Amino acid sequence: MIVLFTDFGPSGPYIGQMKAVLAREAPGVPVIDLFADAPAFDPMLSAYLLAAYAPWFAAGTVFLAVVDPGVGTTRPPVAVEADGRWFVGPGNGLFEPVLRRAGAGQGRVMEIAWRPPALSASFHGRDLFAPVAAALATGRAAPLLRAAPEGVSRCPGWPDDLARIVYIDGYGNAMTGLRAAMLPRDARLRLPDGREVRRSHTFGSVPKGEPLWYENSTGLAEVAVNQGAAAKDLKLKTGDPVWVADGGDPGA
Amino acid sequence: MIVLFTDFGPSGPYIGQMKAVLAREAPGVPVIDLFADAPAFDPMLSAYLLAAYAPWFAAGTVFLAVVDPGVGTTRPPVAVEADGRWFVGPGNGLFEPVLRRAGAGQGRVMEIAWRPPALSASFHGRDLFAPVAAALATGRAAPLLRAAPEGVSRCPGWPDDLARIVYIDGYGNAMTGLRAAMLPRDARLRLPDGREVRRSHTFGSVPKGEPLWYENSTGLAEVAVNQGAAAKDLKLKTGDPVWVADGGDPGA
Amino acid sequence: MIVLFTDFGPSGPYIGQMKAVLAREAPGVPVIDLFADAPAFDPMLSAYLLAAYAPWFAAGTVFLAVVDPGVGTTRPPVAVEADGRWFVGPGNGLFEPVLRRAGAGQGRVMEIAWRPPALSASFHGRDLFAPVAAALATGRAAPLLRAAPEGVSRCPGWPDDLARIVYIDGYGNAMTGLRAAMLPRDARLRLPDGREVRRSHTFGSVPKGEPLWYENSTGLAEVAVNQGAAAKDLKLKTGDPVWVADGGDPGA
Repeated sequence: MIVLFTDFGPSGPYIGQMKAVLAREAPGVPVIDLFADAPAFDPMLSAYLLAAYAPWFAAGTVFLAVVDPGVGTTRPPVAVEADGRWFVGPGNGLFEPVLRRAGAGQGRVMEIAWRPPALSASFHGRDLFAPVAAALATGRAAPLLRAAPEGVSRCPGWPDDLARIVYIDGYGNAMTGLRAAMLPRDARLRLPDGREVRRSHTFGSVPKGEPLWYENSTGLAEVAVNQGAAAKDLKLKTGDPVWVADGGDPGA
Repeated sequence: MIVLFTDFGPSGPYIGQMKAVLAREAPGVPVIDLFADAPAFDPMLSAYLLAAYAPWFAAGTVFLAVVDPGVGTTRPPVAVEADGRWFVGPGNGLFEPVLRRAGAGQGRVMEIAWRPPALSASFHGRDLFAPVAAALATGRAAPLLRAAPEGVSRCPGWPDDLARIVYIDGYGNAMTGLRAAMLPRDARLRLPDGREVRRSHTFGSVPKGEPLWYENSTGLAEVAVNQGAAAKDLKLKTGDPVWVADGGDPGA
Repeated sequence: MIVLFTDFGPSGPYIGQMKAVLAREAPGVPVIDLFADAPAFDPMLSAYLLAAYAPWFAAGTVFLAVVDPGVGTTRPPVAVEADGRWFVGPGNGLFEPVLRRAGAGQGRVMEIAWRPPALSASFHGRDLFAPVAAALATGRAAPLLRAAPEGVSRCPGWPDDLARIVYIDGYGNAMTGLRAAMLPRDARLRLPDGREVRRSHTFGSVPKGEPLWYENSTGLAEVAVNQGAAAKDLKLKTGDPVWVADGGDPGA
């Protein structure tokens, strides 16, 4: 299975052109659209979103992940293996949390040594990354890759979890880059307007119109409003910071 | 064939995660995106939209239909058979018109008895309904279902057709929940602003900028404006009521 | 491979219904979404967009292309062969640039002689064009087509390249209908506000916030703003004219 994760937007020709490459070079391999609206131009926000969704997919899955504001510059193209999954895309930090969370000895960074006969300046997703993803999904990638020098594409200064909004979904719920399992059971989340939000198991646990946070279906801490749209009602947008307030000190 | 009908919105990870389940558990079965923007949080409006589109698909089609504001509450998960098609989703009325319109003895409601090892609180589409849809599409569903008690998930008070706007399409045309074939040949539709709209066969039958209604390609009465966008020009939105005005009394 | 090119919009049931036809009548043939948001109701703008993307696909590809404001009127349904690719849709000019650019003797227009048992007034994409595209993709189309009279669906007055904005992508970049390879190397593009924009190889070649034009990944001249959104920053919209200013005369 090949999973697409990009900031290309839900419309337009870019996803289709990548899929045409995959259909030609990895025929019969299922291709899944996961995100076409990852945080645009922002590899850091996108990285924590990707890392949250990746473990839900089986080992052997190939992620074709392109959030690449530096296309055409010197960032290296990479293929990263982590916990048996492969991630193909720009070496700009996009795979840092995936690597950080991999089991001991289960993560490695390969550089893409191969170059296509024709490489456009602006669409490496189609010309470079999609063919490599297809090769990985069909067991033909080894000649295209080489071991990367120590530290290539790594971001040692990034946190293990990201206390920012990384995605607003179609209902207006606001996902953070924080794994709920890493937070104290009774943690509250402080929003940019100073409001503090308590954890609930389901939306219905709070009165209509009240905010809450909960562990979403992928394990992230997500801010919502019962029968409302958190992004609009609480004026949250992608990239906004949040703060974890210790549940043991409600007045903090 | 498995057909997706949800209010998840056209973006975001939810459709993709359901498709990943289907690719794994019903490999090779075509999956069709019908609606990802069914009326949000509104099983009643969505039900009449679904019932209009379902008959266009062949017997044996499995609809994975999720408009589920009550996810995590007590509404039963169901699999409904109607006229040889299957519908999997929440038992909240979403399949009422489909059942109502099924031939005598051709509709039945089954409860989903099976539960997955891990069931998230907020995403039964992925965890519960998609696996059952895959099982139905591959002939493995019988052990997962049981007969539902009489009346489960039924809404006897709902009308046979719904005199409300159930969908605005990309051109701004406004579909009602009324089947054109059930209306008098010369019926007019009265809109919320009091305006009455006559039936036409094609857009070009009325002057530019004038409203009309016509039988759309799926059989619903649909309000449009010739070379315009009805939703904007006539200020129509999903959920708005319409009224059928008897054609025999033009002044009514 | 069947490639979809329509103005149906990214949401709603129309693409799905066409894909259901294709899955039934051309099982196993990959179907690629290229554009669902081609310039709405505008066959001319759409035609130059389609012609730019078509050559990127292999010979044998079938394009199911529907931008059809005249559906239900007298425009002929056609199947056009150009350079070994097929294009199925309305004969309203949508395939004019594709035909114009075909090699000598490599383009021809066929009329669709076949009619389905049931043909809706408003959705020939589903009822007429999709079955013919499926037949072309599976080698069964000959009995459905007949040679068109000289000049049918042709637009001799149209230019070889179109000096207008034909598409705004998800990043806000504005594609023109001009092939970059046909322009002088140092050409500038004059925008509707009078501003003149120079060619650059990559975004990073100009200061942040400055406009540029470049040859995009499909060969079109595209207007962009480094780290900005050209459509918004420069107030460009689909259909706007641009002018080629001779690079040799910077003051022109």
